[in-house]
Amino acid sequence: MKILIVNGPNLNLLGKRNTKVYGNQTFEDYFEVLKSKFIDIEFEYFQSNVEGEIIDKLHSAVECFNGVVLNAGGYTHTSVAIADAVEAVGDMGLPTVEVHVSNILAREDFRHISLLSPRCIGSIWGFGVTSYELGVMALIYNSQNV
Amino acid sequence: MKILIVNGPNLNLLGKRNTKVYGNQTFEDYFEVLKSKFIDIEFEYFQSNVEGEIIDKLHSAVECFNGVVLNAGGYTHTSVAIADAVEAVGDMGLPTVEVHVSNILAREDFRHISLLSPRCIGSIWGFGVTSYELGVMALIYNSQNV
Amino acid sequence: MKILIVNGPNLNLLGKRNTKVYGNQTFEDYFEVLKSKFIDIEFEYFQSNVEGEIIDKLHSAVECFNGVVLNAGGYTHTSVAIADAVEAVGDMGLPTVEVHVSNILAREDFRHISLLSPRCIGSIWGFGVTSYELGVMALIYNSQNV
Amino acid sequence: MKILIVNGPNLNLLGKRNTKVYGNQTFEDYFEVLKSKFIDIEFEYFQSNVEGEIIDKLHSAVECFNGVVLNAGGYTHTSVAIADAVEAVGDMGLPTVEVHVSNILAREDFRHISLLSPRCIGSIWGFGVTSYELGVMALIYNSQNV
Amino acid sequence: MKILIVNGPNLNLLGKRNTKVYGNQTFEDYFEVLKSKFIDIEFEYFQSNVEGEIIDKLHSAVECFNGVVLNAGGYTHTSVAIADAVEAVGDMGLPTVEVHVSNILAREDFRHISLLSPRCIGSIWGFGVTSYELGVMALIYNSQNV
Amino acid sequence: MKILIVNGPNLNLLGKRNTKVYGNQTFEDYFEVLKSKFIDIEFEYFQSNVEGEIIDKLHSAVECFNGVVLNAGGYTHTSVAIADAVEAVGDMGLPTVEVHVSNILAREDFRHISLLSPRCIGSIWGFGVTSYELGVMALIYNSQNV
Amino acid sequence: MKILIVNGPNLNLLGKRNTKVYGNQTFEDYFEVLKSKFIDIEFEYFQSNVEGEIIDKLHSAVECFNGVVLNAGGYTHTSVAIADAVEAVGDMGLPTVEVHVSNILAREDFRHISLLSPRCIGSIWGFGVTSYELGVMALIYNSQNV
Amino acid sequence: MKILIVNGPNLNLLGKRNTKVYGNQTFEDYFEVLKSKFIDIEFEYFQSNVEGEIIDKLHSAVECFNGVVLNAGGYTHTSVAIADAVEAVGDMGLPTVEVHVSNILAREDFRHISLLSPRCIGSIWGFGVTSYELGVMALIYNSQNV
Amino acid sequence: MKILIVNGPNLNLLGKRNTKVYGNQTFEDYFEVLKSKFIDIEFEYFQSNVEGEIIDKLHSAVECFNGVVLNAGGYTHTSVAIADAVEAVGDMGLPTVEVHVSNILAREDFRHISLLSPRCIGSIWGFGVTSYELGVMALIYNSQNV
Amino acid sequence: MKILIVNGPNLNLLGKRNTKVYGNQTFEDYFEVLKSKFIDIEFEYFQSNVEGEIIDKLHSAVECFNGVVLNAGGYTHTSVAIADAVEAVGDMGLPTVEVHVSNILAREDFRHISLLSPRCIGSIWGFGVTSYELGVMALIYNSQNV
Amino acid sequence: MKILIVNGPNLNLLGKRNTKVYGNQTFEDYFEVLKSKFIDIEFEYFQSNVEGEIIDKLHSAVECFNGVVLNAGGYTHTSVAIADAVEAVGDMGLPTVEVHVSNILAREDFRHISLLSPRCIGSIWGFGVTSYELGVMALIYNSQNV
Amino acid sequence: MKILIVNGPNLNLLGKRNTKVYGNQTFEDYFEVLKSKFIDIEFEYFQSNVEGEIIDKLHSAVECFNGVVLNAGGYTHTSVAIADAVEAVGDMGLPTVEVHVSNILAREDFRHISLLSPRCIGSIWGFGVTSYELGVMALIYNSQNV
Repeated sequence: MKILIVNGPNLNLLGKRNTKVYGNQTFEDYFEVLKSKFIDIEFEYFQSNVEGEIIDKLHSAVECFNGVVLNAGGYTHTSVAIADAVEAVGDMGLPTVEVHVSNILAREDFRHISLLSPRCIGSIWGFGVTSYELGVMALIYNSQNV
Repeated sequence: MKILIVNGPNLNLLGKRNTKVYGNQTFEDYFEVLKSKFIDIEFEYFQSNVEGEIIDKLHSAVECFNGVVLNAGGYTHTSVAIADAVEAVGDMGLPTVEVHVSNILAREDFRHISLLSPRCIGSIWGFGVTSYELGVMALIYNSQNV
Repeated sequence: MKILIVNGPNLNLLGKRNTKVYGNQTFEDYFEVLKSKFIDIEFEYFQSNVEGEIIDKLHSAVECFNGVVLNAGGYTHTSVAIADAVEAVGDMGLPTVEVHVSNILAREDFRHISLLSPRCIGSIWGFGVTSYELGVMALIYNSQNV
Repeated sequence: MKILIVNGPNLNLLGKRNTKVYGNQTFEDYFEVLKSKFIDIEFEYFQSNVEGEIIDKLHSAVECFNGVVLNAGGYTHTSVAIADAVEAVGDMGLPTVEVHVSNILAREDFRHISLLSPRCIGSIWGFGVTSYELGVMALIYNSQNV
Repeated sequence: MKILIVNGPNLNLLGKRNTKVYGNQTFEDYFEVLKSKFIDIEFEYFQSNVEGEIIDKLHSAVECFNGVVLNAGGYTHTSVAIADAVEAVGDMGLPTVEVHVSNILAREDFRHISLLSPRCIGSIWGFGVTSYELGVMALIYNSQNV
Repeated sequence: MKILIVNGPNLNLLGKRNTKVYGNQTFEDYFEVLKSKFIDIEFEYFQSNVEGEIIDKLHSAVECFNGVVLNAGGYTHTSVAIADAVEAVGDMGLPTVEVHVSNILAREDFRHISLLSPRCIGSIWGFGVTSYELGVMALIYNSQNV
Repeated sequence: MKILIVNGPNLNLLGKRNTKVYGNQTFEDYFEVLKSKFIDIEFEYFQSNVEGEIIDKLHSAVECFNGVVLNAGGYTHTSVAIADAVEAVGDMGLPTVEVHVSNILAREDFRHISLLSPRCIGSIWGFGVTSYELGVMALIYNSQNV
Repeated sequence: MKILIVNGPNLNLLGKRNTKVYGNQTFEDYFEVLKSKFIDIEFEYFQSNVEGEIIDKLHSAVECFNGVVLNAGGYTHTSVAIADAVEAVGDMGLPTVEVHVSNILAREDFRHISLLSPRCIGSIWGFGVTSYELGVMALIYNSQNV
Repeated sequence: MKILIVNGPNLNLLGKRNTKVYGNQTFEDYFEVLKSKFIDIEFEYFQSNVEGEIIDKLHSAVECFNGVVLNAGGYTHTSVAIADAVEAVGDMGLPTVEVHVSNILAREDFRHISLLSPRCIGSIWGFGVTSYELGVMALIYNSQNV
Repeated sequence: MKILIVNGPNLNLLGKRNTKVYGNQTFEDYFEVLKSKFIDIEFEYFQSNVEGEIIDKLHSAVECFNGVVLNAGGYTHTSVAIADAVEAVGDMGLPTVEVHVSNILAREDFRHISLLSPRCIGSIWGFGVTSYELGVMALIYNSQNV
Repeated sequence: MKILIVNGPNLNLLGKRNTKVYGNQTFEDYFEVLKSKFIDIEFEYFQSNVEGEIIDKLHSAVECFNGVVLNAGGYTHTSVAIADAVEAVGDMGLPTVEVHVSNILAREDFRHISLLSPRCIGSIWGFGVTSYELGVMALIYNSQNV
Repeated sequence: MKILIVNGPNLNLLGKRNTKVYGNQTFEDYFEVLKSKFIDIEFEYFQSNVEGEIIDKLHSAVECFNGVVLNAGGYTHTSVAIADAVEAVGDMGLPTVEVHVSNILAREDFRHISLLSPRCIGSIWGFGVTSYELGVMALIYNSQNV
């Protein structure tokens, strides 16, 4: 089983900013931990601040992966185009799980709407980086039930 | 570790309704499966259609449990009172994870607002009954990080 | 044919309040009149001020009744949970007709939305207690056409 | 007792369109059935696609009829002018009952508002053509209580 | 003169939660203080987390009390049914004063609407538990002026 | 100078309805009074309940009249088509004054919006039938200033 | 008969600003014209840019005047306090007519709401300074009918 | 192939109003040009300012035409009844294309909503009278693909 | 202890208007009663119809008073500037209690929002002039607890 | 004449996804058909999922093309930046026609707003890939009229 | 060059309130600093808590000043009347720059709307008292470009 | 001190479009003027039409610059992602000033919301290209005060 982890804008700053609060673990560091917990699964990690590059990556992932764990950051709330891409690759057999590090419903009003959520198989948020790990498990369960 | 699973209104009908779609597994059946997967954890299951009884249960759980997995059903979208209860028991040391069987953002507009979500440590939805299992895992991680 | 009449919050005060306007006929009095007009039909009457008890009653009615005449009072406008119950028992073969004594669209703005209406087979309001009688007739017609 | 049945725009197509679903009974056919059920009542049937002609008919009905059963179709949601006419003839002693064939609250959002409902003595919807029959009964009850 | 104090959901936790902020005085403790200040008045205290039980209590209070001091907690903002009950018992001669411990207009948006306020004789909020004492005084004045 | 008075839906009932309040002066009666006050002006009176007939009349008035006093009744609030007609004939040299008998801003919310007002040269409301007289004067002044 | 003309903020600039468009007639100039047309009526003119001074003037006018022609300028859309004053002096026997020089519904959105209109006996706008003259006539008619 | 061109309110003024801007070509003139471009197609042209007559025409067109090019003018934004008619005749096999002369999204806010658009096979606007020609082509393509 | 009573616009008319309903007690009369009930407290009374004068008074009160009872009348709903002043003097040690004579939530929609309430220590409304007396008590309690 | 066809996000998947419904004709395939129908016109085709690259392309097209047919996909509803670019190149002499394959007003609510439409010369939607062909014709007509 | 600095309500408290945060520099102190930085410019400083006095000052400034730096405080968000005054004096040749000490878009929702901004030549906020200095520079630049 | 100037979409067209209005000074030309005014400051200029490239640039600027002057063009109103980036680099010590050439509050409604403004230290708009110069000064002041 092959799973793609996609991070959207500003998530490349994890571990480099506000280190007193978040620690100085970058996502790359956490990615090593994540991989070590699921040794049977092949992972790829992709990050971009460009909306269209995330769409390109999702399109090209159809042939290569069995599922996507997507944290689209600020594009979650504004991107009809990524939402369309999630729906399209879903129709082509590639399921996406939406994850967020923080509890987006406890933040500003404009973060309360997720355009992606109705097009993903499910959503997980608020558990820190553990959200990614729960997302991977959700994809595993999903692949066993389909 | 002791975890309380709380189901709100109409969830007692799982497995008794629309059996062609959902199968005829009741939540009680699934609860046995759930317990078998986490043999180190002690579980209790509580279901009520009465908003105030769910609040009573959350209050009384503070002394007895280490975490709650809550699917408040239709009260998710309307109950300031349960949201207050989740916040109150959270302040008293009992964390709650919100779960839903279906993808509530892909359903009717009035299900797009969760009053509970900002007061839970995190939310998980769309993965069928597996959402409960992911919720339990989230509580375990959470207890290890606090 | 067996029909359940369900009255929600504050409807137990009919005939006890504002007697100059509404007369001093209680719903229990009217219920006798209603039964006398449909001698071939077996009726049960249930009233509760507790949202969850109305849900419980609807669930348990699936096995025993052929239809429900429901006046959910103030819960009409706020209860996603009762709306879910109406939909669920409808899927299980128990049709519900929504009735109101007064013309709810001629009252305050917050009474203009009925969460129940889209889930009932039909709605009747504004005809005083006669609304219940029309509701019973609607259930009879409905049973003949299904 | 004399009752006027008024149908608004597009209701002349009943029985001519979507015959697999609605059958090929036109409203004229149903009107014969309706008359046969209330042999003591004199009926007239009027249909127009023109908003102003419906207003004209309501005005002229004050002198000739004891009640109106009105299905204003698409004008239900947009016509302040028909609503004013219903109120005016009501003030002059001619009561109106609003009926709809389908459950308008289960359809598109713009059908959820009825401008007519607050000005009619009551409303009935969702019971197919039986809604007209219930409307006639409601007028009979109403005439006995006034 | 007999006055009923009604507390809604989660108010049973006063003094048990956030004791650094609120002190460890429970409402039961405060109730003793309150009674000692109005020795000519007979008090009863009622708390429930169940919306319908609050309605039941208000109904049954009509015969026994001269006024109600009501803090409906989270139901303040969502319960048409309790608002109807307050109006009904008001019509039957039992006045209600709305109180809140905190300044609800300085909290979350969804707490800015009180469905109860237009149906009570008046509202008092923001003065801590002293709000109850001011509520009792308001009832005394009101009884002297009616 | 020739002036056209146009009345919209239900205004044919003036003087025939609610005679205790409005008196039994019909608009035709008032029209005689109005004409007697402006003996140098030639008047025509037109009333229709049909939106499109009002538009037809406005179109045909361009060649024959120097101004229009328009009370569009319920169409005031809903008719983009009449608003377009008022604008079109205005461009062709025929000015329109909007009048209303009652104070429309003191009535229901849906009467607070006038689609016609921004396209008329001015608006007058709330002065009973005297609004028409003020409307005629406004047209006279306007013709003197252009 | 004594009539008070009240002008609100910025109306002291009439004739001093945009003289190419509005001409260089100040309101004081126009006031002389106005008085010459109604020689039987005693007028007073008051202008202030201060909201509270307009309220003071309205209060003091109750004893001295038979009617007010009020152009509240920018306060029309924002001042609950002037609206309350208009209502109060109306209750004390002093009627107010609202006038505006321009067509306020053809300008910015925030000018489409008049808080004053529902409290005045009627409103007139869009006819340039002639609106004041029509306002005076409306007060004369009104005094003759009351 | 037979195509019906339907124009709604005020479109009879094309070429008669604002001739400096639009030229003095009436729609009747343009209709000759249109016919000359599609010599294999039989056209009929219908214009009415009356909403209900447009509905009547659409109903009667089902038997006689293969497609409709509809410019409903001001009714585009307000008429649920015409929208229902378009849907009904569409179900009966008569497709409709929506056209507008101007770019309605670049005009006033109340023109931004088209009730007709979701019920037509497609929409074309902004190209002057050429919009009709493109509409005819769209019907031809559509007939070839169905 | 020194307390300032501030009344906003139109409250100078109390007792002079609608005397059948409110009696002919002016606020000045009531003020004598109020003072007689709290003989240990020094009071000053200030009324103005001018928004800015109320702000000036609040500013100057910081040095001289221990608390303010404020009924801002119509400015309650519109004045960000008074709200800022209440907050500012609160920061400088002068607490304000908001009072209203009537139940503002039972009146027009535009009175349902209080900009002042979130900046006062608490709010009291609906108890007639007794609201002021309760406001004074609230300030006394507050001074004892701080 | 040179025309640029621009496709936005996810339109590169045409013909590769949902082939049962849409057929397996890619846009590249259709592009050949399109070119064969307009042999006198020189075409270029550009597709990108990146919002900024579409803007870059529009800018560079000013010097090389006579018109643009733009299907901006999901950016239609969210991109102020592309709308600004369309307006800018329009000012510089390059007209744009908006096209969509599906009827966007018959889809989700968030697709009902087009930020691009008011800045294009016109819009065409709902006719499948034929929309592009109609768009090309519209540009040809437009070039002949300017 | 002569510049007027206008401060609205509560800004007289700068330096007297929250001195730990803002320091104890009053605006009068800062005004001396400001003047010393622009020795070629003649300044006047005006502060008032009264909306109408600010309007009066703006009117009288037309003849005496070359520009205004305006911080209208709480009136920024509510005063149509000051906005009209800014527009009027702008038309008469006196440009206004809007400044704010704090970042008003980072504060409460009701501070996010500035009625003044569209009528000023530009706006500057968030830079503490330096905003005034930048405002003066903006006026200098503006005078050089006009 | 090193300052980065960032321009968003379409700002590369300055001086190339509408040259009659804006002149034919490109931003590159203006940049030379800007640099000549602040000879002690080192500048870099960056422009991109791609949202994500602007985010990349902001991230990389943290180490190299002391402040950013940002004109995000059309992304100002829609980009949560850039707003997050501004906040992130602000937390890492790099302050941003928002500037706009035009008065965005005097343009279309969708330009009235700035997602960036609450995350910048301050905002400046409406002064033409001078806004950039004022932005640079604001950064200098800010660096002196921190």
